[in-house]
Amino acid sequence: MSEFRQDPITGRWVVIATERAGRPSDFSPIAASTSEANCPFCEGNESQTPPEVLARREPQTTPDQPGWRVRVVPNKFPALGQDETPVEPHDGFFRRRPGIGAHEVIIESPHHERSLARLGAGAIAEVLEVYRDRLLTRRRDPQLVHPLIFKNVGAAAGASLEHSHSQLIVSPIVPPVVAEELAGALAFYQARQRCVFCEMLAQEVAETRRLVVETPNVLAFCPYASRSPFEAWIVPRRHASHFETISDPLIQELGEVLQRVLQGLEVALESPPYNQLIHTAPFVPADLPYYHWHLEIIPRLTQVAGFEWGSGVFINPVPPEEGARMLRAALGSLNAPSGGTSFR
Amino acid sequence: MSEFRQDPITGRWVVIATERAGRPSDFSPIAASTSEANCPFCEGNESQTPPEVLARREPQTTPDQPGWRVRVVPNKFPALGQDETPVEPHDGFFRRRPGIGAHEVIIESPHHERSLARLGAGAIAEVLEVYRDRLLTRRRDPQLVHPLIFKNVGAAAGASLEHSHSQLIVSPIVPPVVAEELAGALAFYQARQRCVFCEMLAQEVAETRRLVVETPNVLAFCPYASRSPFEAWIVPRRHASHFETISDPLIQELGEVLQRVLQGLEVALESPPYNQLIHTAPFVPADLPYYHWHLEIIPRLTQVAGFEWGSGVFINPVPPEEGARMLRAALGSLNAPSGGTSFR
Repeated sequence: MSEFRQDPITGRWVVIATERAGRPSDFSPIAASTSEANCPFCEGNESQTPPEVLARREPQTTPDQPGWRVRVVPNKFPALGQDETPVEPHDGFFRRRPGIGAHEVIIESPHHERSLARLGAGAIAEVLEVYRDRLLTRRRDPQLVHPLIFKNVGAAAGASLEHSHSQLIVSPIVPPVVAEELAGALAFYQARQRCVFCEMLAQEVAETRRLVVETPNVLAFCPYASRSPFEAWIVPRRHASHFETISDPLIQELGEVLQRVLQGLEVALESPPYNQLIHTAPFVPADLPYYHWHLEIIPRLTQVAGFEWGSGVFINPVPPEEGARMLRAALGSLNAPSGGTSFR
Repeated sequence: MSEFRQDPITGRWVVIATERAGRPSDFSPIAASTSEANCPFCEGNESQTPPEVLARREPQTTPDQPGWRVRVVPNKFPALGQDETPVEPHDGFFRRRPGIGAHEVIIESPHHERSLARLGAGAIAEVLEVYRDRLLTRRRDPQLVHPLIFKNVGAAAGASLEHSHSQLIVSPIVPPVVAEELAGALAFYQARQRCVFCEMLAQEVAETRRLVVETPNVLAFCPYASRSPFEAWIVPRRHASHFETISDPLIQELGEVLQRVLQGLEVALESPPYNQLIHTAPFVPADLPYYHWHLEIIPRLTQVAGFEWGSGVFINPVPPEEGARMLRAALGSLNAPSGGTSFR
């Protein structure tokens, strides 16, 4: 029921997904967040979602029943699906293709918690493990090319449900933003035989002004060309192109850093709306010397307005050096968790 | 006080504009719209804006005093400016450049009118004439490369003031969205010796399903690969790459079509938030056989959420054929203005 259509000028694809028109929040500029009383993601309401495709559960509990810690279900209003009607690729002058793919929801807690940061580093790490599991499953489908895991928090960031959750959309194409990163990183590698992300990490460590959290294997910082105030990236120090190859110890450390950065945002900005996403390489080939997976957090404090929409240039009123300083100060005002991360 | 910074991975530029941090609406996810009581754009409040750089006025009236119909002033919180401090282009590993450019506000009525559509086709045409005048002035500055005229209507579209106005930002670079259109259009032209926009117009006229308004020289339609429900483009039928070369009669006709499309949106969607922008070629060279200026209207009914942000792929729940049908129906329910436009 959904299809990709290509803009004949730029070659950009859009998804026309009529099934999503049934969502409660559509055509309202401000999405209506569902409250605890009628939340389909809360434990006990499992029948309100499609059947689970994976869950981290207590022993001796039954699928689609209580007893889970993290639960993955197909999106009830999927943008892409598996049983798409074949379409003729030529539509007169235009081009299209079936909306084949996957669209899943990762429910991050059985309780009605709005904030991932408040779940604790261990629970966050379990969510990250589930991300890895889903990519390892989906990469076996030869029709699927690229996975994007993302998170919308707050109505201004596109969330229609407030219960903490992420989404995974696996596409049959490499999306343009990822394709641009791949092309830019490849060009850099060809010119200098170095990964541009590794080079950027070295510069951030040397400069320190934009760092937010440093641990032995993970760096969080506000990027030099931040598009949004308080934009923060979390990047593994060791080169790796595919998120799904992440080790168990690194997942634990990533969970701690993610928790700290989200805590910093919640304290500094009073629980802002934000988007979070993981940029990882297409499933094939399995390893790329020039690309480096990373997690991006984009607080949605400014609107994407006419200039940004029409130009692709973002106007950011807060220098990342200032954003990083405020996030460090916010983290300094919290008690550092025992054995937790610290900023030198 | 502002600077361009380049993302080292993609080459994308952002503007770090600290002067804009002073805007009243910043750091609030929903911009606070100023009401009539304290509106700096209303006639009589001219002292609340920087001095005007152009105005369409009644005879014998004085600049920065009442008596104007359309008034252009520098933006009080400019993203780009003329007296930027030179910056060293190398910032360690990173690249930057001074935020040279222009940022103007076109105030479209002396009265506190929220909707351009309600001004009347003649008043809209005068606003379009002012657009042309400003481009003809700004193109004389050899530092400036590309002008983007845009409009934010409603808080969800990024408007911080409700009084009907447009903005002009003239950049020293070709913005990436325009660069992509230019590159795609050039590739099409090289392959087929035809303008891709002219070809698209021919297809839309032949198919009719996505048409909204047709006049002898202008076409309004919902594009095949619409990113947003009810996205509408207004395109001159005759090939022209630069908006500022538009003739007086075509401006009148464009004003009528723009009024009709905005009326359709207001009736069909009850005054939705929207962005409007004109994509036109860079100032030099003066004429391009492969590029075609056009006006885009993007109702902001769905949020730019994590998937759109991280992938560049937009998910649109309303097929443009359906959007166009609803806009035509809304226009049919209005009395056609005498001598006005009609859909066959």
